[in-house]
Amino acid sequence: MHELRKDPLLGRWVAVFSNSLPPDALNVSSESIENEPCILCSGKEAETPPEVAAIRAEGTAPDTAGWWTRAIPNIKPILETEGELGRKGIGMYDRMNSIGVNELIIESPEHDKNPEDLGAEQFRRVLELYKMRITEIEKDARIRYVLICKSSGRLAGATYSHPHSELIATPVIPRLIKGELDGAKQYYAYKERCIFCDIIEEELRMASRLITETENFVAFCPYAPKFPFEFWVMPKRHGCAFEEASPEEMEDLSQVMTSLIKKMRVMLKEPAYNYVIHTAPNRIPRRNHWHTLGDDFHWHIEVAPRLMRESGIQWGAGFYILTTSPEDAAKYYKEA
Amino acid sequence: MHELRKDPLLGRWVAVFSNSLPPDALNVSSESIENEPCILCSGKEAETPPEVAAIRAEGTAPDTAGWWTRAIPNIKPILETEGELGRKGIGMYDRMNSIGVNELIIESPEHDKNPEDLGAEQFRRVLELYKMRITEIEKDARIRYVLICKSSGRLAGATYSHPHSELIATPVIPRLIKGELDGAKQYYAYKERCIFCDIIEEELRMASRLITETENFVAFCPYAPKFPFEFWVMPKRHGCAFEEASPEEMEDLSQVMTSLIKKMRVMLKEPAYNYVIHTAPNRIPRRNHWHTLGDDFHWHIEVAPRLMRESGIQWGAGFYILTTSPEDAAKYYKEA
Repeated sequence: MHELRKDPLLGRWVAVFSNSLPPDALNVSSESIENEPCILCSGKEAETPPEVAAIRAEGTAPDTAGWWTRAIPNIKPILETEGELGRKGIGMYDRMNSIGVNELIIESPEHDKNPEDLGAEQFRRVLELYKMRITEIEKDARIRYVLICKSSGRLAGATYSHPHSELIATPVIPRLIKGELDGAKQYYAYKERCIFCDIIEEELRMASRLITETENFVAFCPYAPKFPFEFWVMPKRHGCAFEEASPEEMEDLSQVMTSLIKKMRVMLKEPAYNYVIHTAPNRIPRRNHWHTLGDDFHWHIEVAPRLMRESGIQWGAGFYILTTSPEDAAKYYKEA
Repeated sequence: MHELRKDPLLGRWVAVFSNSLPPDALNVSSESIENEPCILCSGKEAETPPEVAAIRAEGTAPDTAGWWTRAIPNIKPILETEGELGRKGIGMYDRMNSIGVNELIIESPEHDKNPEDLGAEQFRRVLELYKMRITEIEKDARIRYVLICKSSGRLAGATYSHPHSELIATPVIPRLIKGELDGAKQYYAYKERCIFCDIIEEELRMASRLITETENFVAFCPYAPKFPFEFWVMPKRHGCAFEEASPEEMEDLSQVMTSLIKKMRVMLKEPAYNYVIHTAPNRIPRRNHWHTLGDDFHWHIEVAPRLMRESGIQWGAGFYILTTSPEDAAKYYKEA
């Protein structure tokens, strides 16, 4: 089993493979993603691990064609479901077993059709499957966080060209999410208001970074993002958990995501991109500790085209440089 | 002038261009770095901004050939020296002017010769020039941090193929450095010991991640790094500031860096890579506030080959996956 290790300085957990790859297996210089023939396509169900969930046409059997979106265990999972956490110290350091869940969410039966190409209804199915998996996995009290991330294109770290997202559920809270939770908590302690609700109000008031507003959502380019053309989609109704979105919100969100991702792809000429669902940590294990969590966190989705390579300054110090201002990026989105 | 903006959740500062690039100027898909003819080569001094410092053969004039290493203002600087900080709130957000310094350190007069190819003496000159620039720039009390980062190869974010480092001096502390300072401070408050001194002792004791030990330095693969084959070089003598390294330490450090970077380049087949000098913030502006700083921070250099593209999970959540363990990586370095 792989191992989780904690960086003693930053508190960041990393996963370390139990069987190391040698140096010559690592230097990746190609832009292309080799996966021909693709096992994620409809009709190839027998070649993947058995599905854990799917949204499929009525009457079709698991692991046969007829699905619209399908969740399977990752082929080489980083985390494993069975076993003890095995938290312990190694000298001054901390480690635990890589207990958790690692799945692929296949977003479309067709290799060359993204969910947004198939329409908002297909996008809604994918979002529904995310919800189903988060809800199911959070029943395991060992799991602290369920992270869902879409990667499209080699530069965004995708390992398949077939449209897919990755789910990673960990017994620890990933560092950047932890930073966000801490920031939101501090703000709440100081202001007694949700920082995200304040951000929504501010973005609606200023309007210069707003891309679109619907009944239930606002989409905007954030004030100080990491990447040019990054945008966030945030529900107007305060709620800490994506998996508790209402059916109307899910419907509305699918429309917004479909439209904006299409715009982004046209405007930026099919860029590599990621999106991440920012939702609350699993509240089952420690309902008492985190009694404020429902008030101080607010779920949302962050979408970022990966247009430029991160420089050393960005990678090494976390100092990001935006060659296009969020105000201008919002203008381009609105005009697209 | 560009603007610095603070992310209200994470406290991360980003630089935002005053003249935005349009969408079609951004989608970078090529691996190559175009800079032919190269203006950083010896003989092209008239084509760069005038040098701010250099280490050169006796009797040669500034901005003429005869230099071994040369610091120039960046061609399109992210930060500017002249002006007021202009800190203010914009609604709920914080901004300031992009006051600071942004320089290129040209590490070699020859386009195809890296300092390590020219030998440890050349590497020492580059390190000396870093020292000179940090010392000079820190006289400006508006500057909180001087960051020096080497980028080699397109995948590491380099914008020139000529060997160079970038210097960025900011009126704020970059987020990852701040995280490290905070982590070290917490440890010091709890243990009353420097965490880095403890790490050195632990790595020497365990030996499994140790690459090399010299009179003044240890080099090792850290317990929980971000990237496979990442290594850190740390002085045994406690000191918070790189620019206060002794002549013997500088000599020793040049040897260690020359040898390990050569090994890394051979073993990983000329990978893209970065290194970052982790030194203390500028202590001049607020000597009283940070009176413990000399005790709780310990300068060092972090070197990381950029072998794989950061996945969405890494980028979006800060959860890193190491396909080669630090113990095995150290073994490969020792055998190389």
